Amino acid sequence: MKAEIVSIGTEILLGEITDTNAAYLAGQLRFLGMDLQWVSQVSDNLARLVEVLRRAWQRSGLILTSGGLGPTDDDLTREAIAEMLDEKLEIAPSLEKELRSRFTQWGMTMPLSNLKQATLIPSARPINNAQGTAPGWWVERDGRILVAMPGPSRELQEMWQKEVQPRLRQYSATTILAKTFKTFGLSEAAVGELVSPLLSSENPNLGVYARADGIQLRLIARAETEKEASRIIAEGEASIRAALGEHIWGTDDDTLEMAVGRLLVEKGLSLALMEDYSGGWLTASLTDVPESARFFKGGLIAYSSEAKVALGVDGKLISTYGAVSHQVAEAMAEAAKALLRADIGIGITGIDETSRPNGVVYIGMVDGKNNQVVNRPRGKRRVTTTALVELRKSLLALG
Amino acid sequence: MKAEIVSIGTEILLGEITDTNAAYLAGQLRFLGMDLQWVSQVSDNLARLVEVLRRAWQRSGLILTSGGLGPTDDDLTREAIAEMLDEKLEIAPSLEKELRSRFTQWGMTMPLSNLKQATLIPSARPINNAQGTAPGWWVERDGRILVAMPGPSRELQEMWQKEVQPRLRQYSATTILAKTFKTFGLSEAAVGELVSPLLSSENPNLGVYARADGIQLRLIARAETEKEASRIIAEGEASIRAALGEHIWGTDDDTLEMAVGRLLVEKGLSLALMEDYSGGWLTASLTDVPESARFFKGGLIAYSSEAKVALGVDGKLISTYGAVSHQVAEAMAEAAKALLRADIGIGITGIDETSRPNGVVYIGMVDGKNNQVVNRPRGKRRVTTTALVELRKSLLALG
Repeated sequence: MKAEIVSIGTEILLGEITDTNAAYLAGQLRFLGMDLQWVSQVSDNLARLVEVLRRAWQRSGLILTSGGLGPTDDDLTREAIAEMLDEKLEIAPSLEKELRSRFTQWGMTMPLSNLKQATLIPSARPINNAQGTAPGWWVERDGRILVAMPGPSRELQEMWQKEVQPRLRQYSATTILAKTFKTFGLSEAAVGELVSPLLSSENPNLGVYARADGIQLRLIARAETEKEASRIIAEGEASIRAALGEHIWGTDDDTLEMAVGRLLVEKGLSLALMEDYSGGWLTASLTDVPESARFFKGGLIAYSSEAKVALGVDGKLISTYGAVSHQVAEAMAEAAKALLRADIGIGITGIDETSRPNGVVYIGMVDGKNNQVVNRPRGKRRVTTTALVELRKSLLALG
Repeated sequence: MKAEIVSIGTEILLGEITDTNAAYLAGQLRFLGMDLQWVSQVSDNLARLVEVLRRAWQRSGLILTSGGLGPTDDDLTREAIAEMLDEKLEIAPSLEKELRSRFTQWGMTMPLSNLKQATLIPSARPINNAQGTAPGWWVERDGRILVAMPGPSRELQEMWQKEVQPRLRQYSATTILAKTFKTFGLSEAAVGELVSPLLSSENPNLGVYARADGIQLRLIARAETEKEASRIIAEGEASIRAALGEHIWGTDDDTLEMAVGRLLVEKGLSLALMEDYSGGWLTASLTDVPESARFFKGGLIAYSSEAKVALGVDGKLISTYGAVSHQVAEAMAEAAKALLRADIGIGITGIDETSRPNGVVYIGMVDGKNNQVVNRPRGKRRVTTTALVELRKSLLALG
């Protein structure tokens, strides 16, 4: 089925926001086997919006729109669809009731302007929006489907996953499955060489991409049934794992912090941190791991020497070697480990290149047996990634 | 001048990359006073590319394209422009010479496929590309301008800044200024109603947008001189501030944490945190504020009762009231304040709705004079925002 995406919102054409909804929907349509041919962005201007929708209705079997479903005067998607199809907008009593009860629940009176979010045209059925007040529209007429979704990404993605994608699945004759493999410690070229036989295969198809947390491989299988597609993926996965082994630290939505958390839980070890330079980013990323309480004792973000001493770092080390030193990184790791009674402690101290040529960051790691300190280039986020990579290496070395 | 952007590349329509070039160019066009009316993405397909360019040529005075200037078979932008204008592609000897000398410099032989990067049509003049092998095209005919730029963002942005934007400036008779106002504590509809007279104004123009950290208003003024545009902005700002008052916490690039940091520095007060539920996100956002060391003492992320006690929370409070309680939130704030010797302490403890119906979060705030605890609904990021909003309120109340 030929598909088209129309993203609606003046803020996109003013360059205020990047249209990430289109990229999300494009990726999703691909896995439904839909043939996305056109993507366009249009401002909150009724005439232009109608023009774009009219052309889309002529040339595409499936049209997805995002944005313009809010309560204000410049939210014009409903009006434009009504005009394009020459149908009349009317308030749907059931939608109005639902909307009013939401506001009541919030202890608010519904502003009159929100009433337009309860309107429909005869060809439209509402789509539930669990995250916001704007229901989507599922419009079906003349053998065409138009799906209007709200602009905020969280609302759009939940509506897509729960409501739209399952309904669209029945229009697709092809099943496409994908699996992503995440690696660290190899260059893009090295990964490419190791999996080269798969790179020339049409189905499954394999792509190699460089990402902030390492090289990723994306395996895509296409088949008439889901079972067959799964079989193709499984075969490809076996070859990839044989070629890359331990360099693969996760798949799909895995994050490096999840991989590390999993290892800590497996080995029954707990972790505590003391951060200076990285300002809590390592702590925040680890606490984002589901059930992080099973392995994470806590993070101490000590921004001054005084704070470091209050948390158990020996003040003499700081005055002798400076706060940004190998010795203090190790002492911070030891202090966090001791104070929070963890099995492993990590300490991060550093300074940016604005204050010292090239900048310098020390990551100390102590586990009661081996202490190690690595020295890394600057960049808060990059230091966070490096600390996770080093911790993962140490955990794997424990056997 | 009516402007249009066409982004070219199959990877955009497969959802593999997000089209950030369009957002960049959109923002740039705006401040040239160009009226961007259309943005679209098209795959590396000659027929569809010609169709999109033909429509753009009919309706827009300025067309910017990105992508499709590489050396491979699927780089079709030059071919499509030539077909659209019915002009002939020919190799320009000067470009060929330049290209060959680049490869010689790199110690490489130029692949034959790169020769197409040395082609022009009669209406096109080459635009220098300091970052890559693909020159851009400046096409001028029939009172229209088409500028073709390379897809890689670094190449596109340098070409835009050095070559394209200076030339386009002479076509613009308008100065455009914008100012963003950031609010908290009001719904989108409520903000819309308070500023409704401005919403129907053409110049300045006002837009209202929902963002994660509250509702934002964007005021845009258009005038022949910068002085006149500034005057229009100042007038609009006065009305907005009169309507929204203290709900406005910042403008333009301000973040809530910057607004809070500024207040703390102004008042000469320092801050320390103890977080449980929010897992370090409040600490991480505050340490991202430039010069946060001037007001931020540190953050203690205590994930267990044991850790809270080790950091100074009275264990009896936890056993009597539970870790997720009004009392413990306040004790966490007190402990962080005492241990890190800060003027103000904040404690955040909570539990998600998965563990308890509706979930519950307590934010305690102590400053030695008034202690307060607020109870907020779940969501790590939302709790972080709420804590900043409450802190800001308290600081403002200090007078």
